[in-house]
Amino acid sequence: MTSRTARRRVVRVTVPAGPDGQATADPRADLLAAEEPLEIRVGGQPLAVTMRTPGHDIDLAAGFLATEGVIDAAADLSQIKMCDDNVADVTLAPGTVLPMERLHRNFITSSACGVCGKDSIDAIRIRARYDVSADQVRLDPAVLAALPDRLRAAQRVFASTGGLHAAGIFTAAGDLLVLREDVGRHNAVDKVIGWALRDGRLPLTGCVLLVSGRASFELTQKALMAGLPVLAAVSAPSSLAAELAAESGMTLVGFLRGSSMNVYSGAERLTAVPALS
Amino acid sequence: MTSRTARRRVVRVTVPAGPDGQATADPRADLLAAEEPLEIRVGGQPLAVTMRTPGHDIDLAAGFLATEGVIDAAADLSQIKMCDDNVADVTLAPGTVLPMERLHRNFITSSACGVCGKDSIDAIRIRARYDVSADQVRLDPAVLAALPDRLRAAQRVFASTGGLHAAGIFTAAGDLLVLREDVGRHNAVDKVIGWALRDGRLPLTGCVLLVSGRASFELTQKALMAGLPVLAAVSAPSSLAAELAAESGMTLVGFLRGSSMNVYSGAERLTAVPALS
Repeated sequence: MTSRTARRRVVRVTVPAGPDGQATADPRADLLAAEEPLEIRVGGQPLAVTMRTPGHDIDLAAGFLATEGVIDAAADLSQIKMCDDNVADVTLAPGTVLPMERLHRNFITSSACGVCGKDSIDAIRIRARYDVSADQVRLDPAVLAALPDRLRAAQRVFASTGGLHAAGIFTAAGDLLVLREDVGRHNAVDKVIGWALRDGRLPLTGCVLLVSGRASFELTQKALMAGLPVLAAVSAPSSLAAELAAESGMTLVGFLRGSSMNVYSGAERLTAVPALS
Repeated sequence: MTSRTARRRVVRVTVPAGPDGQATADPRADLLAAEEPLEIRVGGQPLAVTMRTPGHDIDLAAGFLATEGVIDAAADLSQIKMCDDNVADVTLAPGTVLPMERLHRNFITSSACGVCGKDSIDAIRIRARYDVSADQVRLDPAVLAALPDRLRAAQRVFASTGGLHAAGIFTAAGDLLVLREDVGRHNAVDKVIGWALRDGRLPLTGCVLLVSGRASFELTQKALMAGLPVLAAVSAPSSLAAELAAESGMTLVGFLRGSSMNVYSGAERLTAVPALS
């Protein structure tokens, strides 16, 4: 049984109010929401992989099959067993048929065939083409702290609908290169990265990706694929986002609000945070 | 060119502070973030469908291919053209190969083959097995207004990580039947619906699904598949969520905060909101 939360060491950085003064950096422990892939199999065949918080996985598999129209009632299930922490294997009741044609049309599927546990985490990783750990960029915490306001100032639609996520790419000096909004945070990130690619700017060496909400594994992986050395989020990162960032040498900043932030990895890139890298 | 926002008629319901007094209901216009499917094709072949806000779709297609490891630079693209408002067709540069084996392993794919525009919206819909429009449940706005606090009170993990979405199923009287949390809102919803299915409670006649954040098309569809007549969200719904709810006879409540809420469809189920159904 894997846990719903994961403890990680972070550096809490606070920026001074006035123009003078030194940013403070305190190590502390932070509790992150666990994020791990769950592979749902039917009759041993991989059907879908979803990034989820462990816990109630049998309900999750049953609910997924119900809301995708595969099963109607408990009677359509023979059993669901966890064959691994991260693999739920569903046996349908005799007579219940998987409507493969419709599934192929409708499903959000990922055929991470035959992988289990730690392997399935590896399988969802795409091999990074850039080594962001080599990026020598240095960041002023005061500049980082100012980014969310700059993003919000540039967000017109958000103010009128309250329904859009935003992603922005900034230089280390705090200049906004591009801002995109979308109902899906992953789409907003793909839009800014697509702009950068088409503009001949990949890898995005020395740049910061700021997202308006939380940082998931998926967003961290997208940042890595674009060669971004720094990912900053206004809200919390997931456990797997922090793991991937640390492994990759990416600076991951969360809870970037007001005058403070949590640095989950790569704190050595922040100026005035010397001792805690 | 489709719009990034959609205007809809809503009913703004405000609950009186004291035990007496009548809820007020005012019709008004609300601006919702547009949500529509974008099908990304490579060489005419459907590769993926993503639910996105229209706009910068060529950047989105380019960014998606970059972050999935298909292309490295603008030179890998020959052209991307919109062959419909909701279909981006990518032509790769000669010599750039689609790594099909890895894509099959890693991609979140949906093969909504050969559909365009309005058709692609239909294609992502799963045929509902329940008619929620026939659900006769009546709801007291004061009970609805109290649900977010009850959900938060039941959320232990959220308080400690700030990283989890929540979904809860309530009776019309405001009793919490089940609460689940997850880094993915769709997973939290699948977990509560899976619990209900395994407990023999589908369809969830007379019940309310409350989600902690926004209401997307995907969540509305999941509620519909479980026979839920009411979906309530603490934040904004998307345009397609409101459309699907209205078509299905589902009551959709958004911005359920404090003493007020926006009712996007099915306002006739709310007591003390007689005239505006």
